[in-house]
Amino acid sequence: MKLAKKCSEKKVLRDPIHGYIHIQYEVIWDLLHTREVQRLRRIHQLGGNFHVYHTAEHSRFAHSLGVYEIVNRIVHEVEDVQRALNEKERIVAMCAGLLHDLGHGPFSHFYELIMHRSHEQVTIEIITDPSSQVHQVLDSYDKDLSGQIAAILSHTHPVNILNQIISSQLDADRMDYLLRDAYETGTSYGTFDLERILRTMRVCDDQMCVKESGIHSVEDYIMARYHMYWQVYLHPDAKAFELLIWMFYRRYAQIREVVDLPSAKLLDEPFDLDNFYMLDEYRLYSIVQDAAQCPDLYLSDLALRILDRRLFGWIEDPDEKELSEIHTELAERKLPADLYYHEEYSHSSMYLPYKEEDEKNAVYVLDPHGKIYRLSEKSEIVKALMKMETKTRRMVYFAKKRSRFERI
Amino acid sequence: MKLAKKCSEKKVLRDPIHGYIHIQYEVIWDLLHTREVQRLRRIHQLGGNFHVYHTAEHSRFAHSLGVYEIVNRIVHEVEDVQRALNEKERIVAMCAGLLHDLGHGPFSHFYELIMHRSHEQVTIEIITDPSSQVHQVLDSYDKDLSGQIAAILSHTHPVNILNQIISSQLDADRMDYLLRDAYETGTSYGTFDLERILRTMRVCDDQMCVKESGIHSVEDYIMARYHMYWQVYLHPDAKAFELLIWMFYRRYAQIREVVDLPSAKLLDEPFDLDNFYMLDEYRLYSIVQDAAQCPDLYLSDLALRILDRRLFGWIEDPDEKELSEIHTELAERKLPADLYYHEEYSHSSMYLPYKEEDEKNAVYVLDPHGKIYRLSEKSEIVKALMKMETKTRRMVYFAKKRSRFERI
Amino acid sequence: MKLAKKCSEKKVLRDPIHGYIHIQYEVIWDLLHTREVQRLRRIHQLGGNFHVYHTAEHSRFAHSLGVYEIVNRIVHEVEDVQRALNEKERIVAMCAGLLHDLGHGPFSHFYELIMHRSHEQVTIEIITDPSSQVHQVLDSYDKDLSGQIAAILSHTHPVNILNQIISSQLDADRMDYLLRDAYETGTSYGTFDLERILRTMRVCDDQMCVKESGIHSVEDYIMARYHMYWQVYLHPDAKAFELLIWMFYRRYAQIREVVDLPSAKLLDEPFDLDNFYMLDEYRLYSIVQDAAQCPDLYLSDLALRILDRRLFGWIEDPDEKELSEIHTELAERKLPADLYYHEEYSHSSMYLPYKEEDEKNAVYVLDPHGKIYRLSEKSEIVKALMKMETKTRRMVYFAKKRSRFERI
Amino acid sequence: MKLAKKCSEKKVLRDPIHGYIHIQYEVIWDLLHTREVQRLRRIHQLGGNFHVYHTAEHSRFAHSLGVYEIVNRIVHEVEDVQRALNEKERIVAMCAGLLHDLGHGPFSHFYELIMHRSHEQVTIEIITDPSSQVHQVLDSYDKDLSGQIAAILSHTHPVNILNQIISSQLDADRMDYLLRDAYETGTSYGTFDLERILRTMRVCDDQMCVKESGIHSVEDYIMARYHMYWQVYLHPDAKAFELLIWMFYRRYAQIREVVDLPSAKLLDEPFDLDNFYMLDEYRLYSIVQDAAQCPDLYLSDLALRILDRRLFGWIEDPDEKELSEIHTELAERKLPADLYYHEEYSHSSMYLPYKEEDEKNAVYVLDPHGKIYRLSEKSEIVKALMKMETKTRRMVYFAKKRSRFERI
Repeated sequence: MKLAKKCSEKKVLRDPIHGYIHIQYEVIWDLLHTREVQRLRRIHQLGGNFHVYHTAEHSRFAHSLGVYEIVNRIVHEVEDVQRALNEKERIVAMCAGLLHDLGHGPFSHFYELIMHRSHEQVTIEIITDPSSQVHQVLDSYDKDLSGQIAAILSHTHPVNILNQIISSQLDADRMDYLLRDAYETGTSYGTFDLERILRTMRVCDDQMCVKESGIHSVEDYIMARYHMYWQVYLHPDAKAFELLIWMFYRRYAQIREVVDLPSAKLLDEPFDLDNFYMLDEYRLYSIVQDAAQCPDLYLSDLALRILDRRLFGWIEDPDEKELSEIHTELAERKLPADLYYHEEYSHSSMYLPYKEEDEKNAVYVLDPHGKIYRLSEKSEIVKALMKMETKTRRMVYFAKKRSRFERI
Repeated sequence: MKLAKKCSEKKVLRDPIHGYIHIQYEVIWDLLHTREVQRLRRIHQLGGNFHVYHTAEHSRFAHSLGVYEIVNRIVHEVEDVQRALNEKERIVAMCAGLLHDLGHGPFSHFYELIMHRSHEQVTIEIITDPSSQVHQVLDSYDKDLSGQIAAILSHTHPVNILNQIISSQLDADRMDYLLRDAYETGTSYGTFDLERILRTMRVCDDQMCVKESGIHSVEDYIMARYHMYWQVYLHPDAKAFELLIWMFYRRYAQIREVVDLPSAKLLDEPFDLDNFYMLDEYRLYSIVQDAAQCPDLYLSDLALRILDRRLFGWIEDPDEKELSEIHTELAERKLPADLYYHEEYSHSSMYLPYKEEDEKNAVYVLDPHGKIYRLSEKSEIVKALMKMETKTRRMVYFAKKRSRFERI
Repeated sequence: MKLAKKCSEKKVLRDPIHGYIHIQYEVIWDLLHTREVQRLRRIHQLGGNFHVYHTAEHSRFAHSLGVYEIVNRIVHEVEDVQRALNEKERIVAMCAGLLHDLGHGPFSHFYELIMHRSHEQVTIEIITDPSSQVHQVLDSYDKDLSGQIAAILSHTHPVNILNQIISSQLDADRMDYLLRDAYETGTSYGTFDLERILRTMRVCDDQMCVKESGIHSVEDYIMARYHMYWQVYLHPDAKAFELLIWMFYRRYAQIREVVDLPSAKLLDEPFDLDNFYMLDEYRLYSIVQDAAQCPDLYLSDLALRILDRRLFGWIEDPDEKELSEIHTELAERKLPADLYYHEEYSHSSMYLPYKEEDEKNAVYVLDPHGKIYRLSEKSEIVKALMKMETKTRRMVYFAKKRSRFERI
Repeated sequence: MKLAKKCSEKKVLRDPIHGYIHIQYEVIWDLLHTREVQRLRRIHQLGGNFHVYHTAEHSRFAHSLGVYEIVNRIVHEVEDVQRALNEKERIVAMCAGLLHDLGHGPFSHFYELIMHRSHEQVTIEIITDPSSQVHQVLDSYDKDLSGQIAAILSHTHPVNILNQIISSQLDADRMDYLLRDAYETGTSYGTFDLERILRTMRVCDDQMCVKESGIHSVEDYIMARYHMYWQVYLHPDAKAFELLIWMFYRRYAQIREVVDLPSAKLLDEPFDLDNFYMLDEYRLYSIVQDAAQCPDLYLSDLALRILDRRLFGWIEDPDEKELSEIHTELAERKLPADLYYHEEYSHSSMYLPYKEEDEKNAVYVLDPHGKIYRLSEKSEIVKALMKMETKTRRMVYFAKKRSRFERI
């Protein structure tokens, strides 16, 4: 089987989260050196969050390697999984781990909005597109490969544990990003005991699960998620930065017919893979820099806010007086509300550490008698967390008082 | 004194190396929000080294904050320094720490070569240029400030310890980058005991020095430097990546008159600060991406090598047979040697962990009787290291055998 | 004020949890060198738990230094506290931190049972006893000192925050032991963000509290407690070891009149401080070693079980068949149930991470308007945790099947 | 082969240095539960060094498990070693790792002095003594086992790499203790990259060696040794504590005929294993405590110095004035010099990080052409270190001025 071809010497890449990334199969090494995978170096793992946590500058490339490595460990070190899968399935899982984030555009959510498609869709498009380098590499090893990976990434592979290893409540993706984002931001909140989770992973009835002795590690992992949501992922300053990108685009869309900004043309065209390949975060910053010099006051102001990190302010549940002050300020500076003001309702349910919405979306626990239970049936703490009251807050974002280098 | 104005509330930024970055003075907070400082987010601390260590994706912005924080600690926690400086001098030192790297262009050394000026020169130009935001902030606090900072950065400030805190054999700059680069690459080699070095720092005769009880920490720091040089900074693969950038530029310069590559025009113009501000690493990557689609085979090939990480190979002290194979390969593929081949002599003295070339360039040790000595007089291990034999190697870099996606 | 006398040079002791322990006051240095404090080196922080986690070999001495250091930081770095206390009160708090565990006997709970007094009582006895070295040191600085420390340790000092710093739901004692025990056992569960908790500590209405922005750190700390309880402190194997000590003593008490075991006489006498001083864990092990050679089969068997780590087995909620097997085995080996069998009911409420039983026993949160709330009013996650269902389990401990080196 | 019998379930013990200790063979599990191995819990890894570094309270038991785990990894993960050894040899190596420190008495060197035999001799005696539990366990698996282990520990096993894995310049013993002692003392000096050393280990001509790409890790390991020697192992305060033990014994020997100290009788008898088994550090402390109450002023004073940590002072190369002050003080307090004064010459060669005295005592490096070299031939830094100048210092230890609680 060509697919199982090993590298002449096992490759190891130093990684602060996993010690080393180990690459034994040639197909992985070849995938690594495709343009679609290398492009992920120019997409930040946490989008603009490095404007909140200044060291969160790591890319989706590093994360993708990390997910690959966790899959590598699951399929080789978890005995139940190793037994349940044949070599080809193991390699397919490792490829899926490496490739799962290919479809992220610049500032992921922003790009999804302007292109009207999810990053998951784009990932599958790339993998199945005969002209992509990734597809060509896969095909050269096994014609069947890209289809199988696409199935895993759309959660429809007939071997269910393959789907679960890549995407579930306790998957390689989340485990890597929690550890990595915690490391790179310097918060201690995201850490949990990966070793112990791997050691207690089992397969039962074609379902990934965790032995009862691993429940505490899983509880810790769920709390890590909870804290990372509050402290990092859903931080209002991160939202405020995303808004700037969005407002910048909105202004551009308003004036795109009249403004002279050749580099921004990439934003006008409908989605295609060539365009996608060109439009990484590095280029988006260059567009913004060009825009900073254009004559339109709003576009250049918004561009400079992005470049110089002058984020919108925000208030939770503002009272009338606060709102009126904000609008007075905007009016005085002639800043239109559609570009300099935003409000939305934030539900704390978004921050819930763990849900069990349906059969598919639960962590399963294996008891000593070989029966499996939902985590909430075995963990009192998780059961309690699931009953947490949620709150809805009105969040208002707005341009703050004029600062030193602002022209308008 | 306006300069001493404190922020309404002390700001703290989470940082994995220092726990927190503490900002108490308003001038620092204002400097942080200038375009010249924010631009450092788009310059990698280790240039293209993230093609060798995939997690080395951190920027000079994070490093600059780290240097600032170490200076902050030295001027406030080292009692001798705190006593020796007045408040203004302390703030000047902190500004110098934050601003010391402003003048780095994309892939630092590359930019220095094509612009014919050092990053140190550019840094001083920015600080003293009345139109820079940094200069305007400094001026608004104290007209004298930018001159003093420039003096420190050119190592000519009359208060000698200010020069030494920012730049010497044991300065805030090196201490931050060793720790940070080790953390971000995931190597353990760069770690040393910063706490102990700070605790044993003293001032004697207007000279920074370290108490005898700190010698071991300094030895450890010197070994950390040595290992980081070998493992990270001078890794031949890092050199191989830099070469690609250089060859790309060389080819561009050969054909700039005829090639249609508008975004590359920035590379043609003589140095000025506006141009400098536009030309960060993000933009350079966009230029390279544009070039990847141009019709010139060599330029687009070199661009793709950069984007897709197809580094040159390298051999140390190659024998005739190896050399002849390389040249045969180049000839067969019609790859011109001025673009696809490079040789240079590498002296291991570059990797020397520590030198004492002259009075200025030594670490000084304070003995219990209040006398100061050069480190080599007190540390047998350093004395031994300074006598290390050096070697010269002929390093040859070259395009490797054609790989899957190469057209030429 | 003699009490405020500083050491000629600040002492620093390297510590893996806090980096360094800093000692600036002479009274602390003198207390450190008393026999009562040095004796804590011979009392394990976690009793016999090193038979469960083999690296949990640290002493109450190291922990006491750690508590001292956290108090040192609270009274000097938390501005509200620094302002609220005068220098004498700050030093009193630091002494209380260092001395709070003086009264622990060997295997703490065991000693409390045989001597019929709590370790808190003994601590106060030592501090107030004119013949103790600790008392003499305190007295030599300020006649008032020992009384004030005793007041803090009985939670009756008129300055309420002094009581709270040393003992409350978020005190220096718990914060050190969670971090230290996690470090020494090698579990990651006990870690939380001490820096951030210290940074958000405030005083309001003579009540220690935490700013709202610190809530997540406190939630993390509470989860750390929860996990350490389950994984380390209440591990059934730890209980099984404690039982061995207790059964050993029970057998000794049965035969003390007839057995020839001079070193054990220390166990016979009623509590006094001289006796207490002699009877540390090192000596208890020597008594056990002597007993291992005595002719009484049960006493020597129990002694050897302690020395050679042959712990009792345990079952949760055993069924009739399991119980009957255990009793059959005991009967066959002629092992009396009062020495080789134990059962008790374990309530999971013991493992509850946090309770708010009364006004005194809550963590308080300070909102931005200067009002204080109980943690459960501000943290949805804590509110949920407090509603956790509790369970009661019947735990049975028993001598396992005969193993290789057992004579009976 | 009974020896190869696996545990019914792989045992894992949490360990802060290695993550987990993995035990798969029953013979290892059985050895762990012998009295000779469990006794190591009552011998500190660093003797009295916890009087210098207060957290260095770990035992030789924890270290022995750590050495076992490194051997376990070497024989299973280093492919050359795995191939070179059969299963029996691998298990023999693992046993030797676990048992290599059995023969350490209380305060190792002290016990060797009073018993006139080295801990290596005692280790072999225990392993080969038919009445030891260790021997009985070994014998029950394979009659040949104890002899093979003894051969390894006396460095005479015919399979040379077995000797080297356990004891050489780069062996499992040193690698564990450097990492563990650094962790437990909280110094960062002892850390090095164990993973990389394991990954680059090779076997060539029945000789353990390291690939060239591992040289830097080995240099780092050698520097770690150097720093740990200076900072921890050879710290004069550690020597000062050992001297107290020695002086205590000397005084006891002077008056043993007349003093009434039954527990000390153990010190009088010639070496035998029963005596050895009883005399651990816990018991030695109990003897010292008993002695603290005896009427002999010198013996009780020395005992109290040990218990209450009143170490001797020390001076390097004292001048005449300093010496005369010391002797005046001793004379005034009537403290005999044979008990309260000690001098010795300390050669800095003891602190040399690495020597290559003979063929056996070198680290070997494997070059890409399959030739092996001594480390000093390949590492310029090691070559330089070996030429370090050494110094001899006269070290004087003495009782300091009378302190608060001293009677004489």
